[in-house]
Amino acid sequence: MERKPFFMLSNDDGIDAPGLHAMYDVLKEIGEVAVVAPATEMSAVGHAITLSDPLRVWSYHRRGEFFGYAVKGTPADCIKIGYWALLKRKPDVVISGINLGANTGINTIYSGTVSAATEGAILGVPSFAISLATYEDPKFEYAAKFAAKITLELLQRGLPEGVFLNVNVPACDEEEIQGISITRQGKAVYKETFDKRNDPRGNVYYWLSGQKVEPETSLDVDDGAVAANRVSITPVHYDLTKYDVLDELKSWSLEP
Amino acid sequence: MERKPFFMLSNDDGIDAPGLHAMYDVLKEIGEVAVVAPATEMSAVGHAITLSDPLRVWSYHRRGEFFGYAVKGTPADCIKIGYWALLKRKPDVVISGINLGANTGINTIYSGTVSAATEGAILGVPSFAISLATYEDPKFEYAAKFAAKITLELLQRGLPEGVFLNVNVPACDEEEIQGISITRQGKAVYKETFDKRNDPRGNVYYWLSGQKVEPETSLDVDDGAVAANRVSITPVHYDLTKYDVLDELKSWSLEP
Repeated sequence: MERKPFFMLSNDDGIDAPGLHAMYDVLKEIGEVAVVAPATEMSAVGHAITLSDPLRVWSYHRRGEFFGYAVKGTPADCIKIGYWALLKRKPDVVISGINLGANTGINTIYSGTVSAATEGAILGVPSFAISLATYEDPKFEYAAKFAAKITLELLQRGLPEGVFLNVNVPACDEEEIQGISITRQGKAVYKETFDKRNDPRGNVYYWLSGQKVEPETSLDVDDGAVAANRVSITPVHYDLTKYDVLDELKSWSLEP
Repeated sequence: MERKPFFMLSNDDGIDAPGLHAMYDVLKEIGEVAVVAPATEMSAVGHAITLSDPLRVWSYHRRGEFFGYAVKGTPADCIKIGYWALLKRKPDVVISGINLGANTGINTIYSGTVSAATEGAILGVPSFAISLATYEDPKFEYAAKFAAKITLELLQRGLPEGVFLNVNVPACDEEEIQGISITRQGKAVYKETFDKRNDPRGNVYYWLSGQKVEPETSLDVDDGAVAANRVSITPVHYDLTKYDVLDELKSWSLEP
């Protein structure tokens, strides 16, 4: 008998999040699923790992049955501790999501959802992050179905070393989906504002708010594809080197 | 009279850290310095930003004089709030460091030091992170002097859009420095172990420890250069797209 494929599932919205449960239910139909997810919401934690504190892990139950491990840590912590300490065998695919809210453009680097998939790729496992581009009234069905399709594709094809996928699904109904775009990360950045306030004791504090300035509209860009009701798939990696600048830098006179 | 160049200085070791003060003293000789740094140590926070909590800011004094702003937040928060809310004008260069411990190879993506420089680059300011490759008995003089040299170079030349520098300085004496290498990010990853323990009440917790497996030794790689007592300068960027995989992905049959 062939062994079922084995998936590790995480997210940054926490093990309670409906997006993770929607993903779980679909993955369960095509293989075994090990959930290792943050105990609480961990958005915008970037690629944080917990070094100076111990990690606590609880068994999380759903409808009276063991569902997975809740970790008091970040998404990256979850993948690391799952892989190195909790799971009995190496997963065939690492899936992170379904996140509430798009992770496109510059948000990619702040995203805990993406960081879990990054850890999967570092471990040499085909991995992807998947996000639904809405915060309101999310319907995860189509995104979960599409994620299952990608999972099967990854089982068959794998991915080049160090590469993983950042998938963003528009929040429209399935019938309105206009297709799939293979995209690059958008370049639009934020114009931030900090709302300065006084607390009841007169001390100053600030709230960050900001909005993306002119997101790109090309269908070859993650922001543009999602805005046009297309599923965006961006191949990403964790080698930050800007290779085409190496030669220019070598011409600088920095020698002592 | 020409206006002095204006620098924003941050780090992830906290506003108390000797590496930041060493950097400040050297920058002060070539321009004006605005310090906006985490109130406490923030290592391995990755590119985290604080969204769900307010940010608090204090004035930090040194020898009875205003030294800079201490922020209860991450390095990325510091650069954002400095730029958008605290500083009177746009900095000419953003400097993050001097960090205690190398930020080479895969550590680049976990590094709060690097994330502060990333934010500088996102804001369109020439930026660099600088780290000293030791945790013990750090001598920051040479690294600070070298950082001043890079700062002057950046004032003159700038950097291509979205690109910033990740600089790592070996911990040897200045006379032993073998030169400068322009490098790529190393590919070596960690073999992690999680030490499983019981607390006094019998509850399980885990400590992460790990070591880099076979760091690369080429002088063209950050790890290799530093190990050979060379200063490593890696041009990095925050566009995670793996461009050379775009075409391959387009051949996948993912359309609905």
